[in-house]
Amino acid sequence: MSLKALFLNCTLKASPEPSNTQALIDKVAGIMGEMGVSSATVRVADHKVRFGISSDEGEGDEWPGILEQIKACDILVVAMPIWFGVRSSVAQLVLERLDGTYAEGDPVTGQYPLYGKVGGVIVTGNEDGAHDCCANTLFNLTHLGCMIPPNVDCYWVGDAGPGPSYIEAGGDRHLYTNRTARYMAHNLVWGAKALRECPIGTDLRALDAEAGEVSG
Amino acid sequence: MSLKALFLNCTLKASPEPSNTQALIDKVAGIMGEMGVSSATVRVADHKVRFGISSDEGEGDEWPGILEQIKACDILVVAMPIWFGVRSSVAQLVLERLDGTYAEGDPVTGQYPLYGKVGGVIVTGNEDGAHDCCANTLFNLTHLGCMIPPNVDCYWVGDAGPGPSYIEAGGDRHLYTNRTARYMAHNLVWGAKALRECPIGTDLRALDAEAGEVSG
Amino acid sequence: MSLKALFLNCTLKASPEPSNTQALIDKVAGIMGEMGVSSATVRVADHKVRFGISSDEGEGDEWPGILEQIKACDILVVAMPIWFGVRSSVAQLVLERLDGTYAEGDPVTGQYPLYGKVGGVIVTGNEDGAHDCCANTLFNLTHLGCMIPPNVDCYWVGDAGPGPSYIEAGGDRHLYTNRTARYMAHNLVWGAKALRECPIGTDLRALDAEAGEVSG
Amino acid sequence: MSLKALFLNCTLKASPEPSNTQALIDKVAGIMGEMGVSSATVRVADHKVRFGISSDEGEGDEWPGILEQIKACDILVVAMPIWFGVRSSVAQLVLERLDGTYAEGDPVTGQYPLYGKVGGVIVTGNEDGAHDCCANTLFNLTHLGCMIPPNVDCYWVGDAGPGPSYIEAGGDRHLYTNRTARYMAHNLVWGAKALRECPIGTDLRALDAEAGEVSG
Repeated sequence: MSLKALFLNCTLKASPEPSNTQALIDKVAGIMGEMGVSSATVRVADHKVRFGISSDEGEGDEWPGILEQIKACDILVVAMPIWFGVRSSVAQLVLERLDGTYAEGDPVTGQYPLYGKVGGVIVTGNEDGAHDCCANTLFNLTHLGCMIPPNVDCYWVGDAGPGPSYIEAGGDRHLYTNRTARYMAHNLVWGAKALRECPIGTDLRALDAEAGEVSG
Repeated sequence: MSLKALFLNCTLKASPEPSNTQALIDKVAGIMGEMGVSSATVRVADHKVRFGISSDEGEGDEWPGILEQIKACDILVVAMPIWFGVRSSVAQLVLERLDGTYAEGDPVTGQYPLYGKVGGVIVTGNEDGAHDCCANTLFNLTHLGCMIPPNVDCYWVGDAGPGPSYIEAGGDRHLYTNRTARYMAHNLVWGAKALRECPIGTDLRALDAEAGEVSG
Repeated sequence: MSLKALFLNCTLKASPEPSNTQALIDKVAGIMGEMGVSSATVRVADHKVRFGISSDEGEGDEWPGILEQIKACDILVVAMPIWFGVRSSVAQLVLERLDGTYAEGDPVTGQYPLYGKVGGVIVTGNEDGAHDCCANTLFNLTHLGCMIPPNVDCYWVGDAGPGPSYIEAGGDRHLYTNRTARYMAHNLVWGAKALRECPIGTDLRALDAEAGEVSG
Repeated sequence: MSLKALFLNCTLKASPEPSNTQALIDKVAGIMGEMGVSSATVRVADHKVRFGISSDEGEGDEWPGILEQIKACDILVVAMPIWFGVRSSVAQLVLERLDGTYAEGDPVTGQYPLYGKVGGVIVTGNEDGAHDCCANTLFNLTHLGCMIPPNVDCYWVGDAGPGPSYIEAGGDRHLYTNRTARYMAHNLVWGAKALRECPIGTDLRALDAEAGEVSG
C-alpha cells in the first residue's frame, strides 16, 4: 500500500493569500511524489480551529476533521512561518490540540495515535528562528508518538533583519534548502517504510505498571 | 551481535563529586541492561576536552578518544544538568565538537558518522528547563545523523525556584520520570534494532548533486 | 499621575472557566495595588482577536481595542500558561499582533509605541517550560520598545510530568513564586517611575540615517 | 564620572585567531566611544576559566579576575557566536559562573552584584539562532540583576545553511545590523545614566521576609 503524507500549513494567512510556507511544502511534496508518496495539505487558517487541548472543543470546531486526516497519514509534516523568532501561533495551536491524543491510547499497548508515524518539519521566515521552530516541533512530535529520522527539517530564512520572504527572495533556488528538502523527503520515506517493516512493539501500559511498582 | 549504548554525562563536576545526572543515567542503563544492552558512560568533565568545532583540537585534546566510543555505539544518549534554563556548557561543548563529524561523511553515500545510530536525552535540574534541553539536543542529534524514536527523553526537575536536586529530592521514586525511563529504554532498543534491519539507504551525495542542478 | 498596569491573560480558556494564570496575575496586581498602581486585565480569549501581524485585521477584529489599552498603560505584563514547553498560542498571537506597532513609530523620533513602558511576564504551568516563555516574551518586548527591569518574571510550575496546576496545587503558598511576585511588582514600579523621570531620548530616525550612510 | 562598558567575547577561539564576534563588538564599542564611554573586552577563551557555578573554582581559575571587571562596569555586554542554533559553550560557561553572584547580595538590600548595571547582547553566526541566544542571555541577565533597555541586541547572521561569517561576508556593511548597533549603544548609555539618576531602591531582603510570612 502506498504511503500518505500530510502537511499542516500553519501560516497565519487564510487562502487565497499567497503562502511562502506553502511554496516550500510544494517542493518537498513534489519530491515525495516522484517517490510514489501521495500528499495532502491542510491549511489550518482556512478552518475554524478553536483554542484548547482536547480533540473536540465543540461549537463548530473543525479540528476533529483535521485530526482524522492526521491519524490516517504515514508521514506528518508540520510547516510554519517564524514570527518573533519562534513558531507561529497557528503551529502552536496545532500542537496544543494534539495534546488531546494522549488520552486516546491504544487499549492494549497504550501507544498514542501518532505512534507508527514519522514526523518532519518545514519552516520559512524572512530571518532567524528556524532552529527554535524545528527543535520544539520535532521534540513535541516525539512526545506524541512520532519517530524522527535524521535530517527531516527543511527551512529557508534570509539574513539578519527584515527582508523578502521565500518566494520573493527566490528561495526556490537556495542550494542548502533544496538539499535538505531532498534529504527530508528521502529520510521520511525511509522512516515510514521502516515503521511498517519493524513496528514499535513497546507496551506503554505494561511499563507504566512496572514503574508504578518501583515508585510505590 | 548485542547492542551497545553510550551515555555522555555532561555534568559540570568532575569525579568523584556525586552527579545527579549520573544517578538518572544509571537507572536508564539498568533497564537497558535487563534487555541485554551493554552500556558505558563517559563523564566528559573528567577529560580534557578543548573548545572547538573540529574532531581534533590538538594539544592534549581528549575528544578523539571519546569520539571513537561514540562512533562505536548503537545508542547515543546525551545526559546533562540544566543551568540558567538551558543545557550545561559541557553539553553544548559536546555538540560543538560533534560538528567535526559533518566533514567525515561516508565516501560513497556521504552519510555522516552518526547515521545508523539512535539518539536519546536525559536531563536533571532542580527546576525548569528540561524541555529546552531535550528539544535542542534531540534536534541537533537528528542533524548529525541520529534517528529519534518516540519518547526517548527522560528528565527530572523539581518545582519552581531553587530546591533539592534529583538524588536529595528522592527523584529515584518519581513516577513520571520512572515511566519515561522505561519508555526511553524500550524505544531506543527498538530503534537500534530497526536500524539494523532497515538501514537508511539515502545517498546524500547523489541528492546534493540533484539539488545543485536544480539551483544552477 | 498614578501608574497604570495592564495584564494580558493569555490562557486558552474563555471566561468563566477558572484560569490559573489569572490567579497569579491577581497576586501580582494586588501587590501593585498596595503601591498605588491601578491594574486592569484583558483576558484575550474572551475577545475575537484575529490571526495576523497588523494592528487591525478587519472583520470584527477586537485587537484594536486591546491595543488602545496597551498604549495607555505604563506597565505591561504578558501572562500565559505553558503548553508543550513553550508559551500558549494565545500569547504568541498577542506578540504577532504587536508586530503592527513597528509601523506606528513616533513621527519625530521613530520610537515605537511601546517605548516608555516597562514590561514583565507571568507564567503558570503544571511543569517545565517557564524559562523559555519568559526569555522569549521579555526579549520580544524589548524589541517592541519596553524596558525590562531586573527580576520582573514570576512563574509557578510543578515538578516533572503531568500534575496539578497552580490553584489546585496550592501554588498561592509557594515561597519562591511569592518572593518573585514581590520583586516583580516593586521593580516594575521602579522602572515605570524611572522612565518618567528619565525618558529615553534616543532618536531612532537619526540613527537609521547614520547607519544608512555607513552602509552605503 | 564617565561610564564604563565591558564586553565579554565568548568566541570558542583563543587569540590571535580572528573573531567575527570581536569585529561586531568593535563596531558597538566604537559608537559608544563617540559618546564618551570607555570600553574593555575580555576574550574569555584566552583565560583559564573552570567549569562550575561558584565565583572561585580554585586551582588557577581566572574567573575571579574577570568577575572583578564585571562588578566594576556600568554596561555589561555578553557577545557570542551561535553554534548548533544556540549560544556558544563559552557563553553558557560565563552565565554558569555568574550563578555565584546570587550568593553575594548586598548586606542591607540583598540586591545582587549586577543590580545597577545595564545589560546587552551581541551575536554573530553564519546562519540562524540569534533570537534564541539573545532571549536566553538577556533573560538570564535580568535574573542576575541587570536592567535591559529596549533594542539592546545587535546580531548578524547569514541566510539558511552554511556560509561565510560576519567578516568574510562583509557584515560590516549590513544595514540592519548597523542600525541595531546604534540603537543598542544609545539605549545602553541611556540606561546606565538612568540607573545613576534613579537607582533601584528595592529591598529584596524585606520582600523575602514578607513573602515568607505569607507562605508560613
